Formats: sequence, C-alpha cells, structure tokens
Amino acid sequence: MKTRDDCLALDAADALAGLKDRFELPPGVIYLDGNSLGAKPRTAAARAAEVIGREWGNDLIRSWNTAGWFEAPSRLGDKLARLIGADEGEVVVTDTTSLNIFKVLAAALRIQQRDQPSRKVIVSERDNFPTDLYMIQGMIDFLEQGYELRLIDADLSLEDALDADAAVLLLSHVNYRSGAMHDMARVSGLAHERGALVIWDLAHAAGAVPLALTADGADFAVGCTYKYLNGGPGSPAFLWVAPRHMDHFWQPLSGWWGHSNPFEMSDRYDPALGIRRFLCGTQPIISLSLVECGLDLALEADMQDVRAKSLAMADLFIELVETRCADHPLTLVTPREHAGRGSHVSFLHPEGYAVMQALIARGVIGDYREPELLRFGLTPLYLSYADVWDAVEILRDVLDSRAWDKPEFRTRAAVT
Amino acid sequence: MKTRDDCLALDAADALAGLKDRFELPPGVIYLDGNSLGAKPRTAAARAAEVIGREWGNDLIRSWNTAGWFEAPSRLGDKLARLIGADEGEVVVTDTTSLNIFKVLAAALRIQQRDQPSRKVIVSERDNFPTDLYMIQGMIDFLEQGYELRLIDADLSLEDALDADAAVLLLSHVNYRSGAMHDMARVSGLAHERGALVIWDLAHAAGAVPLALTADGADFAVGCTYKYLNGGPGSPAFLWVAPRHMDHFWQPLSGWWGHSNPFEMSDRYDPALGIRRFLCGTQPIISLSLVECGLDLALEADMQDVRAKSLAMADLFIELVETRCADHPLTLVTPREHAGRGSHVSFLHPEGYAVMQALIARGVIGDYREPELLRFGLTPLYLSYADVWDAVEILRDVLDSRAWDKPEFRTRAAVT
Repeated sequence: MKTRDDCLALDAADALAGLKDRFELPPGVIYLDGNSLGAKPRTAAARAAEVIGREWGNDLIRSWNTAGWFEAPSRLGDKLARLIGADEGEVVVTDTTSLNIFKVLAAALRIQQRDQPSRKVIVSERDNFPTDLYMIQGMIDFLEQGYELRLIDADLSLEDALDADAAVLLLSHVNYRSGAMHDMARVSGLAHERGALVIWDLAHAAGAVPLALTADGADFAVGCTYKYLNGGPGSPAFLWVAPRHMDHFWQPLSGWWGHSNPFEMSDRYDPALGIRRFLCGTQPIISLSLVECGLDLALEADMQDVRAKSLAMADLFIELVETRCADHPLTLVTPREHAGRGSHVSFLHPEGYAVMQALIARGVIGDYREPELLRFGLTPLYLSYADVWDAVEILRDVLDSRAWDKPEFRTRAAVT
Repeated sequence: MKTRDDCLALDAADALAGLKDRFELPPGVIYLDGNSLGAKPRTAAARAAEVIGREWGNDLIRSWNTAGWFEAPSRLGDKLARLIGADEGEVVVTDTTSLNIFKVLAAALRIQQRDQPSRKVIVSERDNFPTDLYMIQGMIDFLEQGYELRLIDADLSLEDALDADAAVLLLSHVNYRSGAMHDMARVSGLAHERGALVIWDLAHAAGAVPLALTADGADFAVGCTYKYLNGGPGSPAFLWVAPRHMDHFWQPLSGWWGHSNPFEMSDRYDPALGIRRFLCGTQPIISLSLVECGLDLALEADMQDVRAKSLAMADLFIELVETRCADHPLTLVTPREHAGRGSHVSFLHPEGYAVMQALIARGVIGDYREPELLRFGLTPLYLSYADVWDAVEILRDVLDSRAWDKPEFRTRAAVT
C-alpha cells in the first residue's frame, strides 16, 4: 500500500521534476486537464508582449520579413516534427485540427481516386472525436461522389471494416474518452495491406506519447498544439504529410499562403512544392507565436522519460482510486496495459458530471465527457506524484462526503 | 496651393483627431499601410496580458465558460455587424478570409444547385485578390461537378459575364491594388436580376467605408479584421450570411463548433441554427480576443465621419503628389470619383519597388504590389492631415534625390 511519502520519494527521483517550475499554475490547483488545454509556460507572457509590442506595434508590416512571420508555420513545424517522428520540411503549424483533417482527407481521396477509384468508403470509429466524423460527413455530403462513412464499433471490427471498398482509414491515435491507444505500426500496416491509406489524428497523442510517424508507415497526420504541447487556448494545429504523397495533389483549401510564389499575385493557383501547399490563409500570428513557448519546453524533455513518467503516474492514479475509493461506483475505462493507452485516465461514475464539478470546486481540475465520464490528464511536464496522491485524496473525500450531491454541481455549464 | 499650415488647420478641426492617441505607433513613422496591417490599439497589450495571465494561466479550462470563449465568435460578430450594415446574430469572427470564402461559396453553390442547377459558372475579376480566385479554383477542382471560373477583365464586362450560366458572383468590394470600389447595391441588384448570388469580400472595405450589406441586397460577405479593423497580425476573419440563406445549407467545413449541441458528442453532424453553423474548429483565443480592442475603437467613431476624413485625406494626398511630385513618372490608378474608391490610393511608378523601400527607410511605410504599384492606406483613426503632408514631402525628396536608386532598395524581400 502506497503512502504520500512514497510519492514524495518518486518526485525526488524524477528527472523531469525541474520542468514543473517552467509552467505557471494557479495556487491551490491540481491541474489534470492538460489533455484538453495545456498549462501556461512561464515564457508565454513575455513572448506575447514582444510580438504585440515590438513585432506588431513597432515594426508593423515589416515583421512579415524581420520577425519571420511568413516562415513561422514551417519553422514551428520543423520543431514539432522532432516530437512526432517526422523530418524537417514535413510539418506545418496552421489552421485548426478540423480544417487540417479536411485537407489531408481530400489529398488521400485524390490519391485513391487515381489509384483505386472503386474504393469509396472512409473508415473511422464511432467513438472517434466527433469533429473528425463531422469533417468526413461534410466532405462526403459536399462532394456527391458516392463516398460513405463506415464506423467501427461494437458490431464492426477494424479488420472487417477494411474491406475492398475502403479508401481511407481515419483514426485518433489516442481516444479522447477512454485514453485507449492504437498500435500505429500495426494498424497502418493492416490498412496498407488492405489497400487503404491512413490518417492519424494525434490530438491526444502529440507531446503525450512517443510517436514515429515515418517509421510506423503513416500516410498523413494532424493534431493539436494546445493540449499536451501547451501552445495556448486554441493555438493553431499541425499537419504532417508523408513525403511520398506530398507533391502529388493540390488540396482544395488552396489559399495564398500555399501558392508557389504568393507575392507574384498571379490569378492562377500554382501550389508550392512540399508541405507549404497545405497552408491556406493568413495565420493568427500572436496565437501562432506562442506555440513556440510550449514546443521549446517539450523539446527539453526526452519523450521516453515523459512516457515513463506518464505511465507511472497513471498506474499510481489507477491504483489509488481503486483502493482508496473502492466503495464508490467508479469503473475504469482506460486500458490497463501500457501499450494500449495514452496519457489520460478515465473512470465512469453515474454522477460523473456533478462529481467533476465538486472536484473542480476543490481545486482538482479534470473534465467530464458525456455520458458519465470523468477524465484525468496526467501531464509529466508539470505534475508531480504528490499531486496525484493529493488529487485522489480529494476525490475520495468528495465521494465519501457526497460533496457532489448539491444542486449547483448538477447545473450544466454552456461548455462541459 | 495648400500648405502644411492648411493641414494643421484641418487637424485642429478634425472630430476624429482624438482617436489617434488611442493607438500606439512608433516614433518617426508615418504609417500608410493600415490597409495591410492595422496599427496597434493601446489596449491590446493589457488585453493580451489578461487573456494569457488570468484566462489561460489562472482559470485554465474553466475560461471556456467564465471568460466567454465559446461565445466569442458571435459576441465579436455582433459588434462587427454594426460596422457593415448587418444585425446581431448574422456575423461570426472566425478562421481566415480564404476559408470563409470556401464556406460561403459552398453554401451559394448549394442554393443554386437546388434552384437553378444548370448554372455552373462562378464569376469574379481577374484582378481580384488572388486568394479569392485560388479558393474558387480549389473548390472547382475538388468538386468535379463541371463548375468553371469566369474572370471579368479588359475583354469581359460584368454585364456580359453575368449570363444565364452564372451561378455566383464573388467580388472584392474595394480592389486591393487600385482601391476602386464597386457600387454594392447596383452590382448586387444586377447579379440578382441575372439570377446569380453575390458574395462580397470586404477585406479592404470593412472599417474603411460605410457598408450596408442588408440594405444593398448582398447574399454573403467575408472580410478581414487585421486591416482597417486593427485586430492584430492575422487576427481571425469574419463571415456574414443574409438571414434568408442562413439555415438552408450545411457548409462542408462542418467542425464541432458549428454543431447544434457540440457537447452532446454525437457521432452525427447536426448544424446549429443560425450563423454558428459557419464555425468549424477551435479558434485561436488570444488572437481572437484582441479583435475586440480594434472593434471597440472603430465603434467609437461615426462611419460617416471616417468616410469623410478618408476621402479628404486621399484628395489631399492625390493633389499633393500630383503637384509637388509632378516631374516624376507617377500615375494615379485609383478612381478620382469619391463613390468609386475605398480608403487607399495607388500610384504606378516604373521603379515602384525601390521607391517604396526608400520611403520605408525614411519612415513612410506604405507597400508595394506587383507590378509597379505603390499603395498608400489612409486610415482616419490614426492619421492626421499633417501626416499626409509630411509623407508627400518625403516622397518628393526621395524622388528628387533619386534616393531609391540604390542596390539595397532593389533587393526583393521574401514578403513584399
């Protein structure tokens, strides 16, 4: 049976412990929602002041050149590439995950249209993050070219879904609800064997688990910089394309920034070679610039150390919840096997919404997802083992005292 | 013949003069590029510090509710509506102008597909801002439904272009090069008479000229917040849809934020009623928040006063350039008639690129557009008549002394 002193001992031996002070977290808060919105790097405020004061206010339009605004999506992309097993020139930071799904899905369908035009099925999972499904539905509806969406669920396995009609497989690497993680190499290999291309949504994976896009044979990937990469609320997303696909197709969101020579002001779109053709319109420079603060911190840590601490914290969290809150109806939905999960842990509780609100009121910030799901993100860069202990103690107290059983904790907020 | 004292007298009588101090401009700079990137409101730095410090850093994920992040695109849209002749609930601030063109063009084509399916031509202008044309080309190429782009130019009039095949007319209200402005009511009326729907790109018009989207019969509009609205570099764009079209179509970039009930986490896209269905993915909250600083300043001014000062400054600028720089090969390309122009003035000069670099080196910041075009933005909120005088004096000196004729002014920067 573990004690809080055991946790303190783990913290004393933690190679990543020094990074916690590089983030600024409010006093009295144990933040277990870095899987939804990452914490603020201490450098963010100064960087924003520089972009707003010097780059915008003083240098004005000249900053497109002097502050490197034009190169920023690629410069940040090159840094991010190191965290996802990709190379320089293969990643851009731009737009939103939803929009980037549209771009890479369009590119993937075009490749299949050329090579295997009879394949008209886009495969995903019913419990994939909804926006992934919505973007697929929007494209199918818009194209009117006979595509259909096929969803893997309790009644349909991945293996069965990948039949001779499957054009593209779009999966989240780590599931936003359960935290379950796919084996990227195995699934990519299976998709290719069956003739499908594979798009990975890394929203809950980038910065959370070691990734090897190239080695694992992925075709396309998109992801988020404001969760485990700590880029700030709604910071621009990223997009990766395997070099073998990069220059073959002009994706339909073909704005000026993706043009081969945008300042020539030609009336005809001519896509840039390489990853830049996946850029579209003018990016939100201030939000984009702050992505670098989070990336620089992530790059200071070894992803293998991050993964080891993430798994150890999650193991600890699960063990403590299952022992210290054993009298309460909490059901673990995250896979126990290390290889099968990402960096957050989810439990079901019949009063999940109210329990989470009561936890938040006590300073333990996780989040809630319909139905009944309590999510706890375990972010190695700014959480300690003692934090995990303390969070479970507060959870236990909230449950033992039925502190959640109050009207104010049952009232749904606009955003859950 | 005007003198600098005449300009000072105009400034003394200027009802908008007090707004200049609400912006922070670098010393020694006369900023004539607010048509490309607006100046920085003094409130921007403090607002950014608040969003980064309190909303992100301290309140973290709770700010989706407590800081109103979820409502921000609509709240800002409602403010912006007052500047463009629209009503509450008709505008959102989101994504980029390029992406918003894609959304409204998709919606417009869907309406025509239902009502007049034989119309397959999208009409625009050859000298429209390139990204508008690129987005149309991307959509046509992607859809493979027989659409084509028809460009108005020296050989094809608007009247001739709007034939029985024309589905949609997409125009910039104010041309990014010449500053020429369309008569929105007349052109919208003509388009409707010919059976086409009309999309207005207001990038160079919003905040620059009075607009009356509803009264003038527009169908859709998009535009930019970082030019005359001073929202900050690359700040999110806006999108307006006439209420008569709003709820009829599901646009294809159908991400979570446009869902009727996004936190239900349904696997099926069900679009929100109203303008919110034109939202897609998570927005860059810091850049988005700063849009409000610029909007609040714009709303302090009466748009009729802004227009009167803009025209008076441009008349003065043209008169001074044509008299004091008369010996130099400068050709006005902006229409002289007030009703036919926006808020920037452009001259051709055979050495335009080098002339602009020499001007910038002397603190007069305008910009250059291929080929040969010098652009000067006249922004009433933070320019004085004396600024106009001083800018022309420096232009005259640069031309008289051939200060532009140096190798360093001929070397093209990455971004022009």
